[in-house]
Amino acid sequence: MRKLISHACLSLAGYPYNLDFDFSVMAQFQNFSINNLGDPFIESNYGVHSRQFEVAVLDWFARLWDLQQDEYWGYITNCGTEGNLHGLLVGRELFPDGIIYASRESHYSVFKAARMYRVECVEIDTLVTGEMNCADFKSKLSRNAGRPAIVNVNIGTTVKGAIDDLDRIIRTLEKCGFRDRFYIHCDGALAGLMMPFIKQAPKVTFKKPIGSVSVSGHKFMGCPVPCGVVITRLEHVKVLSTDIEYLSSRDATIMGSRNGHAPMSLWYTLNKKGYRGIRKEVQKCLRNAHHLANRLREAGVSAYLNELSSTVVFERPQDEAFVHKWQLACEGSIAHVVVMPNVSVEKLNDFVEELIGERQRWHEGGGFRVPCVAKDIGQENCLCGVHDKKLRVV
Amino acid sequence: MRKLISHACLSLAGYPYNLDFDFSVMAQFQNFSINNLGDPFIESNYGVHSRQFEVAVLDWFARLWDLQQDEYWGYITNCGTEGNLHGLLVGRELFPDGIIYASRESHYSVFKAARMYRVECVEIDTLVTGEMNCADFKSKLSRNAGRPAIVNVNIGTTVKGAIDDLDRIIRTLEKCGFRDRFYIHCDGALAGLMMPFIKQAPKVTFKKPIGSVSVSGHKFMGCPVPCGVVITRLEHVKVLSTDIEYLSSRDATIMGSRNGHAPMSLWYTLNKKGYRGIRKEVQKCLRNAHHLANRLREAGVSAYLNELSSTVVFERPQDEAFVHKWQLACEGSIAHVVVMPNVSVEKLNDFVEELIGERQRWHEGGGFRVPCVAKDIGQENCLCGVHDKKLRVV
Repeated sequence: MRKLISHACLSLAGYPYNLDFDFSVMAQFQNFSINNLGDPFIESNYGVHSRQFEVAVLDWFARLWDLQQDEYWGYITNCGTEGNLHGLLVGRELFPDGIIYASRESHYSVFKAARMYRVECVEIDTLVTGEMNCADFKSKLSRNAGRPAIVNVNIGTTVKGAIDDLDRIIRTLEKCGFRDRFYIHCDGALAGLMMPFIKQAPKVTFKKPIGSVSVSGHKFMGCPVPCGVVITRLEHVKVLSTDIEYLSSRDATIMGSRNGHAPMSLWYTLNKKGYRGIRKEVQKCLRNAHHLANRLREAGVSAYLNELSSTVVFERPQDEAFVHKWQLACEGSIAHVVVMPNVSVEKLNDFVEELIGERQRWHEGGGFRVPCVAKDIGQENCLCGVHDKKLRVV
Repeated sequence: MRKLISHACLSLAGYPYNLDFDFSVMAQFQNFSINNLGDPFIESNYGVHSRQFEVAVLDWFARLWDLQQDEYWGYITNCGTEGNLHGLLVGRELFPDGIIYASRESHYSVFKAARMYRVECVEIDTLVTGEMNCADFKSKLSRNAGRPAIVNVNIGTTVKGAIDDLDRIIRTLEKCGFRDRFYIHCDGALAGLMMPFIKQAPKVTFKKPIGSVSVSGHKFMGCPVPCGVVITRLEHVKVLSTDIEYLSSRDATIMGSRNGHAPMSLWYTLNKKGYRGIRKEVQKCLRNAHHLANRLREAGVSAYLNELSSTVVFERPQDEAFVHKWQLACEGSIAHVVVMPNVSVEKLNDFVEELIGERQRWHEGGGFRVPCVAKDIGQENCLCGVHDKKLRVV
């Protein structure tokens, strides 16, 4: 397993092996079955919980996204999917005849939610960057002007790490006459925690007319168990709540029993790193991602990196054993590396060296041609025989 | 926390502090972020998983419920709720115009599922035991003869531990003309794992026309993280599956990322205890539950215990501090104790002694009357002034 973990750092969705995490701190709690069932803000009659930690973590995120303590509701989820399921359910309960709009590069849980909830889902085209194409959004909104809009906004798409343009999406909704008839859920699974620490990044904030935001806790934060956070407006969640007498609590979550170790891990990590620590790690990730993209391009590998992202997209390696060893996530002709805090420059250099070596081996076989990835990452980023300017006969 | 844990053994839904669990075995894996995302039967490209353990656990449960290895599908869930959400979703996808039938003493997640999935839900009355009232079921089925039935069958209700009569439910469906137009999900959260080890218990088996079964892993099994198991027929789950290229896996679960430590805990517990060990623990629980019910009755406390259950129902203590100390789950006029493997006779005796002492204190105040719980647990079990035969003037 150690061997797998040493490579897992370059793996599909950025589950880092958290080098900073002091597991001995958590070890003393591992022997307890800690269960935060029900509503985080209402004590139930099961005593072995970690609600104090949960609420402290939620407070931290609410503050980060500009909601006052008495204006928000939320909970610590099992994963990013649960955050999306919750946000979109709140949207549907507020607008029962709404339509879900999501770019086609949204996480699969968004489309799963639409199917589960029996809500019509309209897929929006994307730009080559992976962002939602707002022109297409506008035209599709206009076709359904009579029904409210429930919009999934990606704060970092799964494959390309693209950030949908929240401000433009809101303007589009308002221009199309949807004022007060829309609900926005921001899926910030990976980058939702990175954006607030990048100066030039568009701001995700409840000062804008959004309904909910979710992030994962086991990605950028590096918690050792899958978890996440979802925050919504207190007024919204009332539509979902049901009193459960035998818990002497209220039920407004998707799941019932919830892992009580996760809030403690999150609380510990947030407090240990602090704003300053997180900012430093975000900067390091962006720097290292740029380094990787540049090294790949120098080696003649087509690569692309969104400006505010640490996800490097590049041509799909031809050898499945190589893909497997480095645990690369692939889609069509492209693969990606999610550069998380634990990924060092040395590790990235090793990866590039090995890719170059392997590529030469594929060349030797005679069958290798630099694959064209223009449709995936744009002509200007494609280094295939047709698109590479250096190779082009003028 | 230790103080809370020492009492948590008598808590609401039976989350035992597992005295047998050798945490040192698991400790070596606590430092790894183990994630079983996607389908348990298809390797994804994330390397740090525990799928081998997950599949071994699923095989064990499929065998327990009489499904061949090539006939079943399932996964390890985050909790009992997820198992119910999954089973009922499979039912709805098979019968999109179906109606969910569930006894009113079903777990709240069943009603939540109906709301989430936009499926009409018909509540069935219960007998005083807590079982589904099949006469009422029949009459409600007849009123909706045109639409298929998705039935939630409780293998242990939350409050009274009542076992719905599966065979009678199937006969009722067939008599009412629903042959081939029904789907049965068995919610075995607590007792689903106990039933197979009680000789005289009705058998939950896929040899009967059921669609899915779910259990919790942190209740009777005592896993230190919330988890559960859901098993369904392979042919059924195909309606739900979606290929997810970037995971190089398939998605047929409710959640995305899934805790990889849970399958290891379950695997370890099943192997350590074995059939023989589990049978012994089930017998101990039933024996101890009978002991508790008898001690309560002897002390003049109205109490009720379903024949195949280890959940003892009794009059709700009048003092909230007492309820809180022993972490009792209450509903209306009744409370319950779920007697799990970790609950010793000594602990139960302590509890009864303290309850008797407190009750005398309440008497002294002058305001205490033995409360009537006839409508909750039946006249014959009620020891109030009106119903207690010993007290009645003949």
